[in-house]
Amino acid sequence: MRTIFVLLGLLAASVTVNAQTLTSPDGNFKMQFHLSDEGKPVYSLMYKEKEVINESKMGLQISPSIAFDRNFSVVETKIDSCDTVWKTVWGQNSEIRDHHKELWVALKQEKSGRLLNIRFRLFNDGLGFRYEFPVQNNLRHFTLKEELTEFQLAGNHKAFWIPADYDTNEFQITTSRLSEVPLLIDEARNEPLACKSPTPNLAVQTPLMLKSDNGLYINIHEAALVNYPAMHLNLDAETYLMSAHLTPDKNGNKGYIQTGSVTPWRTIIVSDDARDILASNLILNLNEPCKIEDTSWIKPTKYVGVWWEYFTGGGSTWAYTDTQDVVIGQTDYKQLKPNGHHGANTAHVKEYIDFAAKHGFDAVLVEGWNEGWEDNYAYAKEFIYSFTTPYPDFDVKELQAYAASKGVKIIMHHETTSSVADYERQMDDAFRFMKDNGYDAVKTGYVGPIIPRSEHHDGQWMVNHYNRVAEKAAQYKIMVNSHEAVRPTGLCRTYPNWIAQESARGTEFESFNGIRPDHQTILPFTRLMGGPMDYTPGIFEGDLSVYGSNKAKLGTTLVKQLALYVTMYSPLQMAADLYQNYEKYPDAFQFIKDVAVDWDHTYILEAEPGDYITIARKAKGKNEWYIGGITDENSREALIDFSFLPKGKKYQAVIYADGKKADWRTNPKEYVIETRTVSHKTKLRQKLAPSGGVAISIKEL
Amino acid sequence: MRTIFVLLGLLAASVTVNAQTLTSPDGNFKMQFHLSDEGKPVYSLMYKEKEVINESKMGLQISPSIAFDRNFSVVETKIDSCDTVWKTVWGQNSEIRDHHKELWVALKQEKSGRLLNIRFRLFNDGLGFRYEFPVQNNLRHFTLKEELTEFQLAGNHKAFWIPADYDTNEFQITTSRLSEVPLLIDEARNEPLACKSPTPNLAVQTPLMLKSDNGLYINIHEAALVNYPAMHLNLDAETYLMSAHLTPDKNGNKGYIQTGSVTPWRTIIVSDDARDILASNLILNLNEPCKIEDTSWIKPTKYVGVWWEYFTGGGSTWAYTDTQDVVIGQTDYKQLKPNGHHGANTAHVKEYIDFAAKHGFDAVLVEGWNEGWEDNYAYAKEFIYSFTTPYPDFDVKELQAYAASKGVKIIMHHETTSSVADYERQMDDAFRFMKDNGYDAVKTGYVGPIIPRSEHHDGQWMVNHYNRVAEKAAQYKIMVNSHEAVRPTGLCRTYPNWIAQESARGTEFESFNGIRPDHQTILPFTRLMGGPMDYTPGIFEGDLSVYGSNKAKLGTTLVKQLALYVTMYSPLQMAADLYQNYEKYPDAFQFIKDVAVDWDHTYILEAEPGDYITIARKAKGKNEWYIGGITDENSREALIDFSFLPKGKKYQAVIYADGKKADWRTNPKEYVIETRTVSHKTKLRQKLAPSGGVAISIKEL
Repeated sequence: MRTIFVLLGLLAASVTVNAQTLTSPDGNFKMQFHLSDEGKPVYSLMYKEKEVINESKMGLQISPSIAFDRNFSVVETKIDSCDTVWKTVWGQNSEIRDHHKELWVALKQEKSGRLLNIRFRLFNDGLGFRYEFPVQNNLRHFTLKEELTEFQLAGNHKAFWIPADYDTNEFQITTSRLSEVPLLIDEARNEPLACKSPTPNLAVQTPLMLKSDNGLYINIHEAALVNYPAMHLNLDAETYLMSAHLTPDKNGNKGYIQTGSVTPWRTIIVSDDARDILASNLILNLNEPCKIEDTSWIKPTKYVGVWWEYFTGGGSTWAYTDTQDVVIGQTDYKQLKPNGHHGANTAHVKEYIDFAAKHGFDAVLVEGWNEGWEDNYAYAKEFIYSFTTPYPDFDVKELQAYAASKGVKIIMHHETTSSVADYERQMDDAFRFMKDNGYDAVKTGYVGPIIPRSEHHDGQWMVNHYNRVAEKAAQYKIMVNSHEAVRPTGLCRTYPNWIAQESARGTEFESFNGIRPDHQTILPFTRLMGGPMDYTPGIFEGDLSVYGSNKAKLGTTLVKQLALYVTMYSPLQMAADLYQNYEKYPDAFQFIKDVAVDWDHTYILEAEPGDYITIARKAKGKNEWYIGGITDENSREALIDFSFLPKGKKYQAVIYADGKKADWRTNPKEYVIETRTVSHKTKLRQKLAPSGGVAISIKEL
Repeated sequence: MRTIFVLLGLLAASVTVNAQTLTSPDGNFKMQFHLSDEGKPVYSLMYKEKEVINESKMGLQISPSIAFDRNFSVVETKIDSCDTVWKTVWGQNSEIRDHHKELWVALKQEKSGRLLNIRFRLFNDGLGFRYEFPVQNNLRHFTLKEELTEFQLAGNHKAFWIPADYDTNEFQITTSRLSEVPLLIDEARNEPLACKSPTPNLAVQTPLMLKSDNGLYINIHEAALVNYPAMHLNLDAETYLMSAHLTPDKNGNKGYIQTGSVTPWRTIIVSDDARDILASNLILNLNEPCKIEDTSWIKPTKYVGVWWEYFTGGGSTWAYTDTQDVVIGQTDYKQLKPNGHHGANTAHVKEYIDFAAKHGFDAVLVEGWNEGWEDNYAYAKEFIYSFTTPYPDFDVKELQAYAASKGVKIIMHHETTSSVADYERQMDDAFRFMKDNGYDAVKTGYVGPIIPRSEHHDGQWMVNHYNRVAEKAAQYKIMVNSHEAVRPTGLCRTYPNWIAQESARGTEFESFNGIRPDHQTILPFTRLMGGPMDYTPGIFEGDLSVYGSNKAKLGTTLVKQLALYVTMYSPLQMAADLYQNYEKYPDAFQFIKDVAVDWDHTYILEAEPGDYITIARKAKGKNEWYIGGITDENSREALIDFSFLPKGKKYQAVIYADGKKADWRTNPKEYVIETRTVSHKTKLRQKLAPSGGVAISIKEL
């Protein structure tokens, strides 16, 4: 890793009237900072002479009661720059360049003597800034009442948004003008979800994707969310002023801060080409380097599991018995009558191990292995699960030996049902139990309202919890895939064992209220900006009525499910369907078997949020490439340019395409598989069905 | 242990109009139960034909919204009786008789089919009753909105009360008529304490001691507080109706209950002789038997410690350095400048170990040994202490070896500053650290408001925490002495390793706002009804101005401090003063050295709440007796009847008495020590100074 820090300027202390301008390395961005007449910090951002963020105020409201957003004067400013390359442990690219200029401003409130610093970093793909609270004489602890950061947008942009909510991110995504959000938000909020706490006012979540009428793509999010609540964005739908809305605890406080600390970075990623948004590494660059010394045990993973059968309506259950009057630690499960359709039984798990071994999967996820599922009543019940006690029909030692003999790992499942204080009590024992029994990855879950009952999923306390799980798991050399946790902010750079998250509407909703065909064309521009998602694609049998009374139907074609393995980046990818369904379509299944889960390079070929995405990636350490292309409810013709391939060679491409009459509504499973020779000169016009896709695997000939 | 259960009656199902009468084994108590016209459960209690509790309603308000206090019919009743004797692990008596009659009533709400049982136990010293929630089809989980239990008192009794508060019990005790409580409660609440959450309405705490004009002593409290919030008592000061007021969480819920469980017992202890109140074992009898199989490691303990010096104003500090900007886990204390007056340094602790060894004390408490005290800012700061990291000047291994060589134990200190979620995270590591370093007892502390921030000290979540600490500590064979925890309810029977608690205004207040001379004559009738208190008596130097600027003066004579070792029952007794002060008064100190901390028999010789208490106790397994007598602000003549001594023998009594001119205000340290021969016929008239006492040690000649 090479690092170049150049000290460009150091201004004298106590400059009272001052405007600072910072320009991105490539000159496309111009950021300005100054103090208003009231001593309020103000910033603005231009991209190629177009307004991105007009003058917007900064600051905080804290308690003991201080308006920490005015009466400042500038004590000192510094301008630095950085150009360095760092290696990823896993990722869309094996190396990432961090090239930015930095403006650091030290502010002081004259009367109180209180100090606040602001650090800006301007990259070629956007801006990041954060507040810093230096150690000082007159302020050691304070309560965050609100962060007052504004984002004054320049127009009535098109927005890809979900309603702000302190407890869930699993909404359908709405596409509308900002001015239309007030008309649409009630309907968006209305969807039944396991635990909802909508904001009292008009607000949306980040990552927020915007498109301006003058052709700018703007993404607002945050990076390095540590010891701070997640940020939502208030919206004034008439002036297009957005402002920070931090997730509170239930006492109305937003956070508890000790000086000598910093806030997360607020990020604004901008381009006039939508592909640059997907290619941006700004959020990763604003996170701290990897804190794990030995990362050899962190392994991108492709897995199957005892999971989808719980959603199909086919009758399989997490619970071992139908008796609900269980008390964890007291009930003797061996005395209870099994219900006869418990998914996580030894024999059935072995079937999945066999399947994984046969088809080259790394691991098998098993949900419902541990005591407590019969009566997992969130919030009211605190002591729900034992994380060290398997059900009587789940033989931990036998399965450990069996999986090891087949070269397959079993992935542990820790559903907490948000009884988090109790999970923390059990965590060390649970992780030790995992290591004692050969597990090195855990899927965590946070369904339902949180205990401690003062807390929301996205508040400071829970943010600290998720980070603590990642950190503690790293001590045990355990990889973490967290579901229903706060949306990611690039912390997987710092803790690469935090290998994936859910934190959005994933495939499970194909069995509930459905997923709209444009969903997967938006998620990479919103949720995935913060980090990989365990989306769990690969559903081949999309008509759930074949299992029973569930009338749900998949919102994509079968081929689009294949394409998602490339377009929905994650180092953790599930083949989510029942293994029997893969056995029915072995030729299509071949793509899932082949596709890589870690990459040297990523090439965003086509992208328009809400419409389509086509991405090519080179498998890490191999001369193999995979392409995924998807479309929304409209069919389209993708133009796939193979110029990313090395010159002068021939390659074999296996193309998995929607059949001529394929359509997600009427004919989702029609596909054609074609093999052809390609080179870096190839340009392929490929038809995609409504909510269809294309998947291509490429090898050197 | 012998147990006799006799089934006295079993009535037929669905009796609609019915009154049940239960009589105590000795016939003095008569309890009646019936359903009102509205189907409300109603009970009343008489003692020797005097009204104790007039008709009072019972029931609960729960959510999902059910009035769980009406529309009941009786499904079944059972009457049982019990007469058994059980052995204490430690206590005021080595054996306790449990002799009671029981009425069990099964109720049903016809429409909903919901079931509620009530169990009454009537002893010769009072009544206990509890609600029981059987497993049933239509109710599995519910939220407690309030318990509706009433206590309709028969008159405007004299009450010994502290204001109801969800977070503290450290108030001065007020003595007044019930009708005067409204006039006095604001002043009582006004005292500055570390963390206060007064009830919005007129309410007082339990144990509540009452005295009626017709000569009845009545004590209301609870027993076996498990998975339920502590109960306060609402007061209607005109009708003398008291009613349950459960401690809520900050969302306003009182508790989260799963059926198949029971509430704590509500206890009403009554006599026409105040001594019977102190002699009552009703609360212990209503607790579950000891759950610890091997109790051999549980040892009543007399100790000294690095403690009082933090309160004297002499400058000694818990903190190692004066730098407050510390972050636990990040700050390297070895790099910080020591402040030069840190109490828990190795050399100073060795002085206490030497002193303990020389004078026969079992243990030395050391506070301030671990990192974090510099900035223990409650509530706002969650990560305050490490419970496994000593300060640089506290050498754990050296002190372990030194203490072991002297036959002295060191008592661990875990001040949590109420950052309880974090304490639970560290607890296993902390207990392992203790065992690895030779500790087998811990003093816990809960100063300040609680994290999780939804919780109060006395709510269900914290009740579960304290109980969990006791249970987990037992697994590690660790004894617990909890400070600022919820007031005890006899759980020390079930977990005898929970050897003492504070949960009231203790000696530390002699260095703050003071302690009134009647305080120690009331505490045994209030706080101590639930279990032993670590009152930390033994202050010889009561004029704190000798140390510096602290103007506080002790509220007792020196001899009263000696007497407290007998009158304030605890198996854990501290000699709290600086060891140098004991060296100045070796003859008086001899009593503290001699006095036992565990007993075969206890004899309450004289008692009047608020005025005086005289108690004699026989040391466990020894022919030694100790007497303590104390008075309030008035001098008095105690009449000490030695008839508790075995007949036919002569004994040597060493009498530690207030000097002739002794007075707590003007001359607290004047004392005389006299040796005389006594027998079971001896009757001693002994003068006690204002806020004075008498202490007597007795051995066979």
